[in-house]
Amino acid sequence: MKKLINDPQDVMRESLAGFAEAHSEILKVSFFPVYVVRVDAPVAGKVGVISGGGSGHEPLHGGFVGQGMLDAACPGQVFTSPSPDQMEAATVAVDGGAGVLHIVKNYTGDVMNFEMAAELCQARGIQVESVIINDDVAVQDSLYTAGRRGTGTTVFAEKICGAAAARGYDLGRVAALGRKVNERGRSMGMALSPCTVPAAGKPGFELGENEIEMGVGIHGEPGRQRIPLRPVKELAAQMAEAILTDLPFRGGDRVIAMVSGMGGTPPIELYLVYRELDLILRARQIEVSRRLVGNYITSLDMAGCAITLMQADDELLSLWDDPVLTPALRWGI
Amino acid sequence: MKKLINDPQDVMRESLAGFAEAHSEILKVSFFPVYVVRVDAPVAGKVGVISGGGSGHEPLHGGFVGQGMLDAACPGQVFTSPSPDQMEAATVAVDGGAGVLHIVKNYTGDVMNFEMAAELCQARGIQVESVIINDDVAVQDSLYTAGRRGTGTTVFAEKICGAAAARGYDLGRVAALGRKVNERGRSMGMALSPCTVPAAGKPGFELGENEIEMGVGIHGEPGRQRIPLRPVKELAAQMAEAILTDLPFRGGDRVIAMVSGMGGTPPIELYLVYRELDLILRARQIEVSRRLVGNYITSLDMAGCAITLMQADDELLSLWDDPVLTPALRWGI
Repeated sequence: MKKLINDPQDVMRESLAGFAEAHSEILKVSFFPVYVVRVDAPVAGKVGVISGGGSGHEPLHGGFVGQGMLDAACPGQVFTSPSPDQMEAATVAVDGGAGVLHIVKNYTGDVMNFEMAAELCQARGIQVESVIINDDVAVQDSLYTAGRRGTGTTVFAEKICGAAAARGYDLGRVAALGRKVNERGRSMGMALSPCTVPAAGKPGFELGENEIEMGVGIHGEPGRQRIPLRPVKELAAQMAEAILTDLPFRGGDRVIAMVSGMGGTPPIELYLVYRELDLILRARQIEVSRRLVGNYITSLDMAGCAITLMQADDELLSLWDDPVLTPALRWGI
Repeated sequence: MKKLINDPQDVMRESLAGFAEAHSEILKVSFFPVYVVRVDAPVAGKVGVISGGGSGHEPLHGGFVGQGMLDAACPGQVFTSPSPDQMEAATVAVDGGAGVLHIVKNYTGDVMNFEMAAELCQARGIQVESVIINDDVAVQDSLYTAGRRGTGTTVFAEKICGAAAARGYDLGRVAALGRKVNERGRSMGMALSPCTVPAAGKPGFELGENEIEMGVGIHGEPGRQRIPLRPVKELAAQMAEAILTDLPFRGGDRVIAMVSGMGGTPPIELYLVYRELDLILRARQIEVSRRLVGNYITSLDMAGCAITLMQADDELLSLWDDPVLTPALRWGI
């Protein structure tokens, strides 16, 4: 295992310490229990929006904490759910009196722990709503999931719910927007290489020299099938087809698109993927209204990428365009 | 070779096509000859600022084209210098009557071709000044260089000269700022793994299972030494020491710092490097006034990172903070 780390047990906390130092004008980190929170939290009268999940997917979620997006994020150890006490402390820290939305990726541990945290917070008198993101079309059920896994659409939900909360929308309305985003978003990923959890010291799975995992999960969970490596034109078509037929997306739709690297894939390749996606969508008269190309949800050092598409409308585009100031997404400020 | 590409010969142009599509509100791409240019170029009365170099280092340079930074960038084939006719066309495209600055990384081909382009442009009546960036402390001379290689400080020069040009400074003053940045900036990188040029199909060099290249160049050129992998604390200390003693940086200095991934290293590790750097600088009473942590100059899929430090002063910090709107750096807009 070749990684830029010290003791594998310290990866999450040490990386988080560097992250906190690097972005101290936007956020701060509590280490006992661990959560990332906006410097100016709680914002009085504003709905709080938080998320969380295992580490190893940076910038998700901590990189999306800041003005106009998340109020807090709870990182677990690498590929491990955060605990209810982290989520409870983060919820308390961001409650400005208008309640708190939990945005939860559909992994069994995350869902269970966020449910427990929601109950603990409600018992303290904090209103909590939850939105579950389950947008990954690759597989029904998986190693860590009942139902579909949650992935790229989470970034869209965090941006749009964050913008809605910043506008002063009430908790019910912010949560409804999160559900709307989830209903309209679909993702699929693929891996060229496995990833290595630092504490494990070896790759989580193996791929042949010319083999890829189509539909891989963000922890390296199995996808739909192992296939031989093909030109990116064919790989992008296969991912796009799975996504487009699922909703389904239709000619005339406007979409927000994301091509996210898995951590080990450089920008030059991600833009190649985006080009293929763009050609496919044009051919179907689907308009890409906004897009992100880069590392947004990684899987440690895995090489590969994921495509996410969301059917947009005027309301969602308007919220998307609202100002945001986070380590990973920033515009208008 | 596992990459998200079609024909290896088409990588640069296809990736650039995706890049142009993804950022069409900021820039456009000319394909004959190839250059990336601000949508609103030329800006009348403003000094134009351009750069260029081989592809494979994205977001450098195209990702820094936009308001407040570069007016244009000339990408060559992967790890290959762009040609004088690209540079000439880009210079003509951005000349708003106040002359054009060429920011050139010190690689033999780049320097030679930019010199030739400058002469061609001057013959057309365009004022051209050049700034050579040679900030890499790892080695004197190298595979592609007489003297030191140019690397991370280029990003700082592009930001600061871009801001100065946007303020309306004249060509001499913008060029002087570029030279000041180069005098005050120092970099050093290291590789955990080699990178693979698509057209070559195999890694450009080899590293043992537990071996790293300290002081590696951004094309995988040899650095100072091959050493066994060590904890990031020690690797960061070794890079920082080489950088700090070179200028030298001193207690009381303020710096702009960058930890750039080489393309195959995920954010969780880059923040670990940043933490170590921050601790080292604090111990020496050097203040990090601004910083970047992410993929800014990559080397295709190489795993590893580079550290860049620049002595800042009020003038440089003020220009750094000016608004910028590019694919890779954005604030204040």
